[in-house]
Amino acid sequence: MQTRVVVVHADREPMAGVVNPGPHQTYRNPRVGVETRELGELHPDEIRVRMMYAGLCGTDVHVAEANPQTGYIKCSAPVRIGEKGRILGHEGVGRVLAVGSHVRHVRVGEVVTFESIIVCHYCDVCRRGQFNQCRRARLLGLEKDGLFGAVVDLPSMLTHDVGAMADSDAGLRAAACVEPAGVAYVACENTRVAGGDVVVVFGAGPIGALAAMLSKVVFGAARVYVVEPIAFRREFVKRWCDRAYDLQEFFDDPPKAIDVLIEASGVMENVTRTFRRLNANGRVALLARSGQPLSLDAIDYMITNAISLIGSRGHLCGAFAKIISLYQSGRIPLDEVVTSVIEGPEELCQLLGTPRKIFDENCKVLVKF
Amino acid sequence: MQTRVVVVHADREPMAGVVNPGPHQTYRNPRVGVETRELGELHPDEIRVRMMYAGLCGTDVHVAEANPQTGYIKCSAPVRIGEKGRILGHEGVGRVLAVGSHVRHVRVGEVVTFESIIVCHYCDVCRRGQFNQCRRARLLGLEKDGLFGAVVDLPSMLTHDVGAMADSDAGLRAAACVEPAGVAYVACENTRVAGGDVVVVFGAGPIGALAAMLSKVVFGAARVYVVEPIAFRREFVKRWCDRAYDLQEFFDDPPKAIDVLIEASGVMENVTRTFRRLNANGRVALLARSGQPLSLDAIDYMITNAISLIGSRGHLCGAFAKIISLYQSGRIPLDEVVTSVIEGPEELCQLLGTPRKIFDENCKVLVKF
Amino acid sequence: MQTRVVVVHADREPMAGVVNPGPHQTYRNPRVGVETRELGELHPDEIRVRMMYAGLCGTDVHVAEANPQTGYIKCSAPVRIGEKGRILGHEGVGRVLAVGSHVRHVRVGEVVTFESIIVCHYCDVCRRGQFNQCRRARLLGLEKDGLFGAVVDLPSMLTHDVGAMADSDAGLRAAACVEPAGVAYVACENTRVAGGDVVVVFGAGPIGALAAMLSKVVFGAARVYVVEPIAFRREFVKRWCDRAYDLQEFFDDPPKAIDVLIEASGVMENVTRTFRRLNANGRVALLARSGQPLSLDAIDYMITNAISLIGSRGHLCGAFAKIISLYQSGRIPLDEVVTSVIEGPEELCQLLGTPRKIFDENCKVLVKF
Amino acid sequence: MQTRVVVVHADREPMAGVVNPGPHQTYRNPRVGVETRELGELHPDEIRVRMMYAGLCGTDVHVAEANPQTGYIKCSAPVRIGEKGRILGHEGVGRVLAVGSHVRHVRVGEVVTFESIIVCHYCDVCRRGQFNQCRRARLLGLEKDGLFGAVVDLPSMLTHDVGAMADSDAGLRAAACVEPAGVAYVACENTRVAGGDVVVVFGAGPIGALAAMLSKVVFGAARVYVVEPIAFRREFVKRWCDRAYDLQEFFDDPPKAIDVLIEASGVMENVTRTFRRLNANGRVALLARSGQPLSLDAIDYMITNAISLIGSRGHLCGAFAKIISLYQSGRIPLDEVVTSVIEGPEELCQLLGTPRKIFDENCKVLVKF
Repeated sequence: MQTRVVVVHADREPMAGVVNPGPHQTYRNPRVGVETRELGELHPDEIRVRMMYAGLCGTDVHVAEANPQTGYIKCSAPVRIGEKGRILGHEGVGRVLAVGSHVRHVRVGEVVTFESIIVCHYCDVCRRGQFNQCRRARLLGLEKDGLFGAVVDLPSMLTHDVGAMADSDAGLRAAACVEPAGVAYVACENTRVAGGDVVVVFGAGPIGALAAMLSKVVFGAARVYVVEPIAFRREFVKRWCDRAYDLQEFFDDPPKAIDVLIEASGVMENVTRTFRRLNANGRVALLARSGQPLSLDAIDYMITNAISLIGSRGHLCGAFAKIISLYQSGRIPLDEVVTSVIEGPEELCQLLGTPRKIFDENCKVLVKF
Repeated sequence: MQTRVVVVHADREPMAGVVNPGPHQTYRNPRVGVETRELGELHPDEIRVRMMYAGLCGTDVHVAEANPQTGYIKCSAPVRIGEKGRILGHEGVGRVLAVGSHVRHVRVGEVVTFESIIVCHYCDVCRRGQFNQCRRARLLGLEKDGLFGAVVDLPSMLTHDVGAMADSDAGLRAAACVEPAGVAYVACENTRVAGGDVVVVFGAGPIGALAAMLSKVVFGAARVYVVEPIAFRREFVKRWCDRAYDLQEFFDDPPKAIDVLIEASGVMENVTRTFRRLNANGRVALLARSGQPLSLDAIDYMITNAISLIGSRGHLCGAFAKIISLYQSGRIPLDEVVTSVIEGPEELCQLLGTPRKIFDENCKVLVKF
Repeated sequence: MQTRVVVVHADREPMAGVVNPGPHQTYRNPRVGVETRELGELHPDEIRVRMMYAGLCGTDVHVAEANPQTGYIKCSAPVRIGEKGRILGHEGVGRVLAVGSHVRHVRVGEVVTFESIIVCHYCDVCRRGQFNQCRRARLLGLEKDGLFGAVVDLPSMLTHDVGAMADSDAGLRAAACVEPAGVAYVACENTRVAGGDVVVVFGAGPIGALAAMLSKVVFGAARVYVVEPIAFRREFVKRWCDRAYDLQEFFDDPPKAIDVLIEASGVMENVTRTFRRLNANGRVALLARSGQPLSLDAIDYMITNAISLIGSRGHLCGAFAKIISLYQSGRIPLDEVVTSVIEGPEELCQLLGTPRKIFDENCKVLVKF
Repeated sequence: MQTRVVVVHADREPMAGVVNPGPHQTYRNPRVGVETRELGELHPDEIRVRMMYAGLCGTDVHVAEANPQTGYIKCSAPVRIGEKGRILGHEGVGRVLAVGSHVRHVRVGEVVTFESIIVCHYCDVCRRGQFNQCRRARLLGLEKDGLFGAVVDLPSMLTHDVGAMADSDAGLRAAACVEPAGVAYVACENTRVAGGDVVVVFGAGPIGALAAMLSKVVFGAARVYVVEPIAFRREFVKRWCDRAYDLQEFFDDPPKAIDVLIEASGVMENVTRTFRRLNANGRVALLARSGQPLSLDAIDYMITNAISLIGSRGHLCGAFAKIISLYQSGRIPLDEVVTSVIEGPEELCQLLGTPRKIFDENCKVLVKF
């Protein structure tokens, strides 16, 4: 069986003298293209899926794009690109065509969405149930071939049945957005957003927009403010927040007594500059990877006010089931985060070549396969 | 200065042979009436308040009503009724007329609502911040004179400024409902209602109705079901839940996999009968006092599924500020829980004489002073 | 390859008219014997283990013993006994002889101890990391063949490397006790035992004794009291508690202000009788299965004091790693809980026929294979 | 009534151009001396105490000592020094001589120890029970006159009865150490030190030493490592940790997989350098104020591993009661942290003039009054 997939290739040339080189210091000269792959015999633990929708994430773009200064890919999240390249994509929904011989909990014909972290279940971290930090985690579409293809083979453990969302196109589009919603959900959990809180979100990309939506509708925030430099995204996110600021507006007069700050922009300086507006017992989640350092100059203020910062990665530990249930109950309009739907691998490949179009004119882009 | 107040008198005759006699085994023959009181010099730690609205709680009714079998008052919550009787009422909003000489944090002219638990701040429980269980707690309107009067003197520590709610009648009515909303809020906290949960509430009195509203809007429940035998209340609560059942309907086909059960009806048997429908890691809050025992016959099921039960009392530890903030943000329509507004102490006194009218035709009743 | 194993057989005759018959209402006439089994080809996900020590648990005894009134087995925990009977045993340590073709995280020659709950990793409960309540959990030695044999085949997922404990006989005996220590650990977690707490444990069997030890040494309890009717166990547990009571002594003058009550005796009445001595915000864990109901007559007291009860099952979610680490650091003398070591399946089989000897003269009994 | 007290005076000259000048940018030229004060009528909310022991804290030294570069006091914690100077001291134990007219919960003759944060009980933070972050907190001995005197007047709310510790000199010395133990306790709570954890403490002053002791004995840490440049303190702390390192030794080969890092040294760089050795879900508490910034260059690592940092201030919310209970149960040898006892205000005053002696040759110094 043959399938068309979107693959990134890059040259592995780790920078000399870097102790822990990230992907942005290891892979140069990324090239993205559509390729035809022959699907062989299915691995016993995998399933074969005909993709319906896949979502485009900033990480996909950052793998496919070189930093003009360094020539290296922009992405600092874990990536492994071998000789055959890497099929990108880690958000999506599809129908199960076949299941491997060991697979018991998925059936042919099911419509499923996917987690994007392949966990080991055996390390000490998995065993204490903190899957998002699995020591042997591999990321779908980054360290293991992903979802950008007409038909793809995937570890069966990643699937969640979304049959109940499959009776409408809106439902399917929502199903393709469960993964980023899960990332936003875990950030809200990590910062313990609670009834009456004042929440500030930096960045109105899909994660930021979903964090705003969830903070308000699911976690009970009283006021949610989003800060976003791109005009389209700032306008777009207004439906889910009390006010959307550009950077200048925000720093001219930031809200007082911020209970929770969710950093989804990758600009660490935003945290530094907002720090003294955090409320007593305030909490900060860092989500967006940028490879940049963070400087905190208000440590005494942090001590007096018991402010906490936490790194937030992942979407596991129950978030998928909660989000699916909340969507089915009509609580969260996940599909509304989608601003464009493009067709097939060729169009996707083309779009990856024009990243500004993705960021400047969209929140979430889906690809229809 | 003179004021008209609603006072309950009763005969103190503790039942013989009861080890820990509750009020329902101590006070007989309750009589409620309107009395004129002379307000003397203000205590240094108190404030004098002109009441605007007071809320009528089931507890008030149960203090004023005798159990026809026993002749004792129905209420099993802590009550102390001395020779002068007890001014009832522990929910309300008013304007500060004067403040005692030690009072620093309240100003004359402020519009304020009130906590109803007078805590000591010095016992070990208060010091660990768990005010709802203060060892020396006294309940307003039950163990200390309360809010049912045109002008009342109150401990200053109970007040919360609701000036921002005072510019509309709806806002003032909402302010009078912060206390019961706080009780419902704490029950949701105690059961850790979270995103995607299935919640069942027994009882659609004000506490139950507010618990349904908060579960859904603030705590992220996916589905909320209410069980209520009284037709009026069942119809009324529909706006805040996914389905309102009568008892028969519910027990004929109870929902499966209930994450949270909030018992606000006082009928312990409801818990026993629903127990095997609780989900893994399910949680039960017991709120309503009835002096009745609870029998659990599914202990093995409770162990296998790590189900927990918790007694839930109070509204302190931050709930008031959260509720006020959520109301101001337009998140929770507190005032909509009010179904009748009556005028002054005489009408209140009359209504206390016809308790079925209160329960069968109302959710929350307010008194305008 | 042949091995000698200890097997229980019983007649499956579910009681008529019981809605959810437990094992104690399903299996009659238990017979325990030593059998020879041929070990065939190893399942791809399993490992073959030469047992070194296995621990005897009250549950094993209760499966092997009939209730004289009913003729049914005493055990109310999940059990499935088919035509071939069931190899008992779910605590132990052994050396890996062979690993199945899919097994990656265990190596031949390793010394390992075992979890006793086989989880699915795919149900919603596993996915939120709460393995102890896995919806498809199967219990080792009860629903799946267990550890009472010279050589046994086991799901590889259960193993924990205890190589660092294998250099002494004491270490190996400790390794055989990690599972019951895990059960006690989870009970302490479920009741949030914390610094300065007063803890009461009902039952000084291995779980109770370990709960006492852990409460004090690991969870910071200030005072730990154990209540146990059997003289041997009461004497034995004194090393790990501040006082060991018999029932009469305890109920004549129970401690005041109990923060945590751990019920490991199976006598529900103990909880009922102690309830009013629980402190504000007190917590009760129910561990021991008896198929008996619990009656709580102090519901108003439970509400006023925000007392909570929780069912506690399992030892997963990190407890094993913590216990192994604590033993290695010399913090918890696990091996001291062992009071007898018997030799091989025949002696074990014989001992199972004299249950009073197990309970009246021992804390933990190990079998050396 | 007259008393001899230790007072610091300083010149208030806020640095120009600093937005939020801390004390170390406000007060110059500190002078410490012994003065005689006349005690007038007791404030209704205060008590008069004859001090038995007071503890010397690094903060006291840093208020009394000028930074040689700037001429300003070293201390960056909140301080207010008026015309009459400030009586230092915020750790200690004494006997109540008299109580103000409003005081109900303290009796003349009681032996008491003291919290050092005077909270308001009325701000939103106090009301949610998070006293350590009270918005109107005033610090004893820094913003309000403290304990360094033969007889002192104090807010009654600060007292804890330690009568049960008063029957031995060791008990009294322990009682004087409850406050710093509370600070260490809250740091352990804030970082959720739990069974089996690997804990690293930077700084073996009293707070660091007590954090090591509590981590191990009360919070169940498996291994505790302390890093301290001063030889005396490094030797001294060995009794409460698994290994005491100097800085060089530590950074040559830091432990792997640190679960909790407690920063009690004031050197922010230590955190930066250790960051990549933090385990998945690792936690860092910042306690020591230095006015210095913190730079984190491993933000991607922090995200991947969900590492959290929290500012930790205070000792309230139950820590005192827990510590007193644990000492009485013989669990924590608080008094052993004392390395010198000096006599009276003159000797104290002299010692404050030789700060190196305090830090280089001591853990906790007590003053006997």
